[in-house]
Amino acid sequence: MDVVSLLPEYETLTAFWSPKVVAEANGQLVKIAKVKGDFVWHDHEHEDELFMVLKGELHLEMEDRSVVLGPSSVFVVPKGVRHRPHCSEETWIVLFEPRSTAHTGKEETAMTRTLAEQYAQHAD
Amino acid sequence: MDVVSLLPEYETLTAFWSPKVVAEANGQLVKIAKVKGDFVWHDHEHEDELFMVLKGELHLEMEDRSVVLGPSSVFVVPKGVRHRPHCSEETWIVLFEPRSTAHTGKEETAMTRTLAEQYAQHAD
Repeated sequence: MDVVSLLPEYETLTAFWSPKVVAEANGQLVKIAKVKGDFVWHDHEHEDELFMVLKGELHLEMEDRSVVLGPSSVFVVPKGVRHRPHCSEETWIVLFEPRSTAHTGKEETAMTRTLAEQYAQHAD
Repeated sequence: MDVVSLLPEYETLTAFWSPKVVAEANGQLVKIAKVKGDFVWHDHEHEDELFMVLKGELHLEMEDRSVVLGPSSVFVVPKGVRHRPHCSEETWIVLFEPRSTAHTGKEETAMTRTLAEQYAQHAD
């Protein structure tokens, strides 16, 4: 692979909440996404999900608490924990998660992107 | 876990090339390190190693090529590929790698840190 400079990659994203795969290591995918507004409540039964924020502020609502991630912050939503990401301003996030992770867990919504769609953006 | 704000975490690091574990997901560790100067040539036989730079510029010399990572850049050194990280100015990096990854591969040097040492810094 070549070096991936993340900031220019965000400029290629045209839709919110639609991740783009930018790298892979040990069966884990690195994805970037521009997000704004509300995502759907969901969980990943078998996979922890690591969030990092590069720009903006991401809220992660969980059933028993909520956290806020500012720039250069990291948080792991443990497998099985229902969560709803949301933010009021455009926010740039990085996700690290196993290849097997379904975008919206078992929820099928208009926001759901297949892994193929997440790779397809990679061809931009 | 709580949200980890990475930039303040770097301020707690007192030695170059000595990683600190800051998060874990799916058996992968997130580590931060301040680096400056030359690290040792080594490889990880079974693990890919993902580097991200937050500040500064990291050079990764490999046997057949070299790459340079600027801020917000990502690169994966595939398993088995010998590499030598180096940089002339203080650089802040993030590593994502399996728990099993040995710091300097099979090389035992004065720079080598055990996983316990990488966790011990976490207690700061």
